[in-house]
Amino acid sequence: MVYEVLQLAGILAFAISGALVGVRRRLDILGVVVVGASTGVGGGILRDMLLGVHPPLSFLHWQNLTVAIVGSLVVFYLHPSVTRIRHFEVVFDAFGLGLFSANGAAVAYISGQSTLTSILVGVITAIGGGVIRDVLVNTVPGVLTRELYAVSALLGAGAAVAVLALGGDATLASLIGGALAITLRLTSVARGWHLPRPKMSGGSKA
Amino acid sequence: MVYEVLQLAGILAFAISGALVGVRRRLDILGVVVVGASTGVGGGILRDMLLGVHPPLSFLHWQNLTVAIVGSLVVFYLHPSVTRIRHFEVVFDAFGLGLFSANGAAVAYISGQSTLTSILVGVITAIGGGVIRDVLVNTVPGVLTRELYAVSALLGAGAAVAVLALGGDATLASLIGGALAITLRLTSVARGWHLPRPKMSGGSKA
Amino acid sequence: MVYEVLQLAGILAFAISGALVGVRRRLDILGVVVVGASTGVGGGILRDMLLGVHPPLSFLHWQNLTVAIVGSLVVFYLHPSVTRIRHFEVVFDAFGLGLFSANGAAVAYISGQSTLTSILVGVITAIGGGVIRDVLVNTVPGVLTRELYAVSALLGAGAAVAVLALGGDATLASLIGGALAITLRLTSVARGWHLPRPKMSGGSKA
Repeated sequence: MVYEVLQLAGILAFAISGALVGVRRRLDILGVVVVGASTGVGGGILRDMLLGVHPPLSFLHWQNLTVAIVGSLVVFYLHPSVTRIRHFEVVFDAFGLGLFSANGAAVAYISGQSTLTSILVGVITAIGGGVIRDVLVNTVPGVLTRELYAVSALLGAGAAVAVLALGGDATLASLIGGALAITLRLTSVARGWHLPRPKMSGGSKA
Repeated sequence: MVYEVLQLAGILAFAISGALVGVRRRLDILGVVVVGASTGVGGGILRDMLLGVHPPLSFLHWQNLTVAIVGSLVVFYLHPSVTRIRHFEVVFDAFGLGLFSANGAAVAYISGQSTLTSILVGVITAIGGGVIRDVLVNTVPGVLTRELYAVSALLGAGAAVAVLALGGDATLASLIGGALAITLRLTSVARGWHLPRPKMSGGSKA
Repeated sequence: MVYEVLQLAGILAFAISGALVGVRRRLDILGVVVVGASTGVGGGILRDMLLGVHPPLSFLHWQNLTVAIVGSLVVFYLHPSVTRIRHFEVVFDAFGLGLFSANGAAVAYISGQSTLTSILVGVITAIGGGVIRDVLVNTVPGVLTRELYAVSALLGAGAAVAVLALGGDATLASLIGGALAITLRLTSVARGWHLPRPKMSGGSKA
C-alpha cells in the first residue's frame, strides 16, 4: 500500500516538474499535459520496455496516467510566477528522481533480475522521464549537466537493492533509497557541488 | 484489404511529411530518406515495442519500408517550392496522424488490449512518428505546440475503439476514426483554433 | 572469442566518440561518462528491444558497460586538444558504426531473423548509438547530415548477412562487414564525397 503510494508520488513529482517546464515554455494546456504526463510515466514505460513487460503498466493502471494528468492540470492553473518557477522545477524533479531510482530498482530486483541489472534499471527509470521531458522541449538533458544528478540516481537505486538484499521489503527499500537520493540531489544543488570538468587546451568550441 | 491500404496510406503520408521537413532542412538524398522512413514507420515500431511484438511488423513486411522510401524519394525529386513546403507538411502530417491514431488503436484493441490501453497505443502510434521526425531535426515536437494536435489523435483513437466495441470491423474503425481526426486537425489549422495558454505573471523567460 | 572482442571494440569506439563530444561540450566527469556509456551501449540496447531480448544483454554482461565507462574516463583525463577533437570523433565514430552494423546484423541473422530484418537491425544498431549521443547533446544526428553515413551502415550490415548466408561464421561476417563499412565511411570523409541535395526554388528557409 505504502509502496503503491510512493510510486504514484514519483509519477506526480515528475509530472509536476514536466508541466512546470511546459508552462515556462508557454505551451498551451494540452502541450503542458503532454509534457507533464510523458515525464511522469515515461521513465516507468522505458523500464517496462527494457524488462519486457508488455504493455507497460502505466497503460493498464489508469491511476498512473490520471495522477500525471491531474498534476499537470493543477500546475497549468496554479503555477508559480515565472521568476520562481525554476526553483520548483528542481525540487519536484529531485523527488521524482529519488522515488523512481529506488522504486525502479526494487521492481526489477523483485522480478528476479540481478543486482547489476536492477541498479541499471533503477537509474534508467529515474533519469528516463527527465530525458524525455528535456528532449521534447529541445534542451540538453539535466542528467548531463546538473549537480550530481546521475550520482543521486545511482545512490538511490543501489541503496534500494541493498535493502532488499538484506531482507527488507519493497516499501522500506523505496523509502530509504528515495530519501537518500533526494537528500543528495537537493544538498548538491543547495551547496553548488559540482564534479570536475575537463581541462581544455585551446579555446572552447562547444 | 482496405485495412492494409489504409495502413500503408498512413505510412506514406507521414513519410512524405518527414521528407518535406528533410528537404526544407536541405539534407542530402539519404538524409531525406532516413527522416522520411523514420517518420513513416517510426510510430508503428514504437507501437510494436509497447505491445511486445518482436521484431516490429515493419521489419517483416517489406511493403511498409518500401512505401516510406519511395514516398521520400518522390518528395526529394518533386518537392514543392520552399514557400509552399510548410503547407504540404501540415496536410500530409494530418493524414498520417489521423490514419495512425485510428489504426494503432484498432490493432491494439483487436489484439485483446483494454479500451484504455488501445486508445493510448493509438495516440502514441499517431504522435510517435512526428516526435521522431521533429527530435531528429532538432525542433520542439509539433504535438506540444500545434493546434489541437493531440486532441485530434485522441478523437481518432477513441472513435476507432468505439466502432470496434459496437461491432464494426477494423476497416470501418480506421475509416471513421481517421476521417474524424483528419477533419478536426485540418479544421483547427484552418480556423486557427488554439487551446488556452498559461497566464504568466512576470516576463516570459521561455 | 574474436567475435566477442569485436563487439567490445565497437562499444569502446562508440563510447570514446560519445565521451569526446561530452568533453567538447564541457560536461562534467559524470556527464561525459553518461554520454559515452549511452553511445557505447545504446545501439545494442535498441537492438535488443527491437528483437525482444529482455533485459538487454548490456544489462547482463558487466563487460559491456565496464568497457564503455573505462573508455569514457580515459577520454576525460587524456582527451586531445580542442582543435583536434573533432577529427578523433569522426574516426572513432566510424569504427563504432562499422563494427556495430556488421555485428548487429549478424546477431539478428543468427537468431533466425530474415535477411531484410537482419539488415535493418544492423543499420539501427549502428546508427542508434550515434543518434542517442547527438540527441542528448541537442544537435541534428550525423546520420542525417554526414557523408555516406547510413550508406556505410547499410553496406556493413548487408555484407555481414551475405557472408553468413554463404556459410561464413559470425566472426568472419563481423570482420568483413565492419572493414567495408569503416573503409567506405572514412574514405567518403577524406574525399569529401556527398550525396545530392535538393534543388530549391526560392530562398533557403531551413
